[in-house]
Amino acid sequence: MSPQPKATHGYISDKEKYLARLKRIEGQARGIHRMVDEDQYCIDILTQISALTSALQKVALGLLDDHLKTCVVDAARAGGPAADEKIKEASDAIMRLVKS
Amino acid sequence: MSPQPKATHGYISDKEKYLARLKRIEGQARGIHRMVDEDQYCIDILTQISALTSALQKVALGLLDDHLKTCVVDAARAGGPAADEKIKEASDAIMRLVKS
Amino acid sequence: MSPQPKATHGYISDKEKYLARLKRIEGQARGIHRMVDEDQYCIDILTQISALTSALQKVALGLLDDHLKTCVVDAARAGGPAADEKIKEASDAIMRLVKS
Amino acid sequence: MSPQPKATHGYISDKEKYLARLKRIEGQARGIHRMVDEDQYCIDILTQISALTSALQKVALGLLDDHLKTCVVDAARAGGPAADEKIKEASDAIMRLVKS
Repeated sequence: MSPQPKATHGYISDKEKYLARLKRIEGQARGIHRMVDEDQYCIDILTQISALTSALQKVALGLLDDHLKTCVVDAARAGGPAADEKIKEASDAIMRLVKS
Repeated sequence: MSPQPKATHGYISDKEKYLARLKRIEGQARGIHRMVDEDQYCIDILTQISALTSALQKVALGLLDDHLKTCVVDAARAGGPAADEKIKEASDAIMRLVKS
Repeated sequence: MSPQPKATHGYISDKEKYLARLKRIEGQARGIHRMVDEDQYCIDILTQISALTSALQKVALGLLDDHLKTCVVDAARAGGPAADEKIKEASDAIMRLVKS
Repeated sequence: MSPQPKATHGYISDKEKYLARLKRIEGQARGIHRMVDEDQYCIDILTQISALTSALQKVALGLLDDHLKTCVVDAARAGGPAADEKIKEASDAIMRLVKS
């Protein structure tokens, strides 16, 4: 990406893909705002909210997979309390995703 | 909003509240885009995605409640096939929300 | 079903279908218990839990649809505070389903 | 448990806790079956289904945490294609949980 890459968090390989998806998600959020502003039909707005939620979920699952493949694997190899902490952190993030 | 209000879909009473929430949701989406762009820590990004998903869910449940209170109640009173259709439409929207 | 039907809650027409599905769900729960008892592979157990969750969700969405079609429609027609209460009750149930 | 323990899948330390929870879940499923059979109020049945879904989710998140702590960490340390496969398997299970 840049001539002097700074330390990254492992998902950099797909960064452009994530940025494009998140750009689209921003556009979807803006579209829902407009639908409410224009008094569009409630059920159509709900359909767009479900689509946006699914798109967000897909980004989250992708980031989580990248995180397991890189940070968690690295921490597991390094071992020690830092590894336990990384696993706990990942489990907590999974719990928030499942519950949200 | 406008001097000659057009026919609306029932959630108009809280329209300003929804618009404000959706503005905030747009900002959250933009913030997540920036976090990825700045290579922030994956788990922190996932936390923000869970928060955004919860905010969206809250908007959806509010809109659905408004929809049941107005369109569905009106259709039930009018009766006939239109009432059945409104219920089916609402059930389908609920299914998409539960599954998304 | 019976010569002197008692007052029911509207989903009676599909009662046999629900009972059969719930019987199967009970069997799935028993199967998951056995998998843990036999130390089966964690991922396989998780797959069965996801299947059971989906089966439960399907029952819940079916019951909710029946409820909207009968109790909520009847209450809407009757009107008054009881109608508002039925809608609130349904919205709360939907919220619990979406969040669970 | 047995005089000659066989190889297990890592969650054995909490096995009794999981078995007790799953026993309770089976009882909850049986209770929901009875509620439908007795024509109990739909909303009350939905409340019990939400409670059962939450209980299942808790078991799933616990098993997944145990799985990450043991199988996935071991595989990460061993390295090679088996490690990648374990991560993929875990990510797929997480996806099914989030979507179910």
